[in-house]
Amino acid sequence: MRFLHTADWHLGRIFHGMHLTGDQSYILETIEEIIKDEAIEAYIIAGDIYDRAVPPPEAVELLGQHLEIVAGDLKIPVIMIAGNHDSAERLNFCSGIMRNSNLFIYGNPVAKIQEVILEDKHGPVRFFPFPYGDPERFRELYEVSESITHESAYRLMMESLNPLFPKKCREVAITHAFISGGQSSDSERPLVIGSAGNVSADLFNRFNYTALGHLHSPQSINSTLRYSGSIMKYSIAEANHSKSVSVVEINDTGDVKITEIPLRPKKDLRIITGSFKEIMERSDSGSREDYVVVRLTDVLGLYEPMNRLRERYPNIIHLERVNSSVAQNSVFSAGREKKDDLELFLQFYKVVTERDVAPAAMDVISDAIKSVVEAEA
Amino acid sequence: MRFLHTADWHLGRIFHGMHLTGDQSYILETIEEIIKDEAIEAYIIAGDIYDRAVPPPEAVELLGQHLEIVAGDLKIPVIMIAGNHDSAERLNFCSGIMRNSNLFIYGNPVAKIQEVILEDKHGPVRFFPFPYGDPERFRELYEVSESITHESAYRLMMESLNPLFPKKCREVAITHAFISGGQSSDSERPLVIGSAGNVSADLFNRFNYTALGHLHSPQSINSTLRYSGSIMKYSIAEANHSKSVSVVEINDTGDVKITEIPLRPKKDLRIITGSFKEIMERSDSGSREDYVVVRLTDVLGLYEPMNRLRERYPNIIHLERVNSSVAQNSVFSAGREKKDDLELFLQFYKVVTERDVAPAAMDVISDAIKSVVEAEA
Repeated sequence: MRFLHTADWHLGRIFHGMHLTGDQSYILETIEEIIKDEAIEAYIIAGDIYDRAVPPPEAVELLGQHLEIVAGDLKIPVIMIAGNHDSAERLNFCSGIMRNSNLFIYGNPVAKIQEVILEDKHGPVRFFPFPYGDPERFRELYEVSESITHESAYRLMMESLNPLFPKKCREVAITHAFISGGQSSDSERPLVIGSAGNVSADLFNRFNYTALGHLHSPQSINSTLRYSGSIMKYSIAEANHSKSVSVVEINDTGDVKITEIPLRPKKDLRIITGSFKEIMERSDSGSREDYVVVRLTDVLGLYEPMNRLRERYPNIIHLERVNSSVAQNSVFSAGREKKDDLELFLQFYKVVTERDVAPAAMDVISDAIKSVVEAEA
Repeated sequence: MRFLHTADWHLGRIFHGMHLTGDQSYILETIEEIIKDEAIEAYIIAGDIYDRAVPPPEAVELLGQHLEIVAGDLKIPVIMIAGNHDSAERLNFCSGIMRNSNLFIYGNPVAKIQEVILEDKHGPVRFFPFPYGDPERFRELYEVSESITHESAYRLMMESLNPLFPKKCREVAITHAFISGGQSSDSERPLVIGSAGNVSADLFNRFNYTALGHLHSPQSINSTLRYSGSIMKYSIAEANHSKSVSVVEINDTGDVKITEIPLRPKKDLRIITGSFKEIMERSDSGSREDYVVVRLTDVLGLYEPMNRLRERYPNIIHLERVNSSVAQNSVFSAGREKKDDLELFLQFYKVVTERDVAPAAMDVISDAIKSVVEAEA
């Protein structure tokens, strides 16, 4: 069986003040072509369909049109789960009825795990949807009295799966989670504070493939666990990502072969570095309509660089100075995240007073910082 | 063919600070029983499904469950249109796919009118959905260059209907509009300012029945045009309404017979009039959980009447004094809407200064009011 795995669409996303619906529509059309060209038999969308619980109406419309083309016109079964950005209740609307029409949508986690069984010439493949849920939701669902983590929630779900299904049957999991070892970027909203959101890869050992959503960079955790990545670059940190969808082929013995099919955006996101003059004058093989971040290397001041750069790149989203006298000398430049509170204060004091803190004052300051930190902890 | 006609559900309505989802869920369960008991063959919902464009998730969930029971479990075709409160785009989600599953949802008006053809033993019945749209939407749709009213929009729609269908076929229209002659109440949001929202009844002459939504009181405009009314009382002005759904039977010659089936709410909305003492002491055959409006006839002041009445009627939503010395003497009592600006000012002056305006000042005041009114026009 050949299926397409994608995730993290974030329909309705507003990116630096710009609505991305047009770009997203273009990508979904590309995916419709891939589904046809690659003879796809099932279509897996692993969460974060929308960017927020109440997406704008044009995002709802876009999703509806795309699903009607794939599930309705092309008759390809679609299996879709909610991610941490989605409203499970809204995504779930009439999902029971839509199961008659190739559309399998799972908004809320449930105690009794459902499955979608699809057939190829070698027999059945079981697809298990594990939609995203807050740990507290799982605590209620499984009536657990102690506190619960994502890891323990998945453990409970795996235990609840029927172990008696014929051993030879091929099984695929679909979920939206942070699997330990994955590489995150700037644009995933953390599932929880700290590492309580982590889930171990080995909880998914029974599956021939696990289609993951959440991380925006396409990546395999191991030979059977994979993030397809987002369909577009949703943060500046993703500028150098290559976005793709994953075509997964699962053979009669359950082995999987994965092919990445690149997604070319209507407007790319690029970082352009150079002096103002160079950038305005040099040739650029990319589209001038791209979303660009400009890193200016000029040392001296410039007159209205943003407005003038916008003539060349109308969709410039961000401008920064990487080499100016201000940037070089500032105590607030790169590396400040790594300084401790005392160091930061000493630097700040020096900038403001133009002298160093007197040695005699050092202990007083150090104690004061310590007591504030302790009071906040 | 026997079909059920209902409208104006306003799921997600907040009524005097209280969420009505529980009450609405109870009514939809009642309707499910009616559909079974009355051997209903089609289910018509004529708009204002939701109370607002972005309904709360529990309202979305409730609608989904109800539709899955009727269209999915009971296999009754459901035909539903958007009203002026609904977001057409949101209601429309995946409606193309759901048409395979007895669920016919029409969010946006379209130039080429669609139809749902259902069969009984006498042949086909054509159901035409005309969802609500702002006049401007119709202007774009029909590429009209002059300004457009609801009436002219309906005229264009009727002209676009295929006149060549076998004459003997029975036809039903479903729409959400203000038909001239209807009785409105306090809780319908006006479609437009003034009378431009009016639509003539005779535009619907070709139909054997027109299932209307918008007005909250059940009423027939003539023998073939009818408002089913809302499923609950949504304003104090509706306290004396009897809510119902309409069972419509259309025979082989196209004649209709209408039966009203009353809807009994979980909590009624009642107006209770009397002195504070009487109301606290007299027996009441109604439920103490009802939503009550209390009209106190006491002449003198009372200590915290609202809090004390809430002990008897926990869901009291409004308290007013109908006979107190304040109410009787106030210039701001009943009838002030009918006074003109000058009269209102003269009364206000008297209350504040305890004397009448001097005759010499009269012209000055009159001119001042006139110039303000003209400046605002």
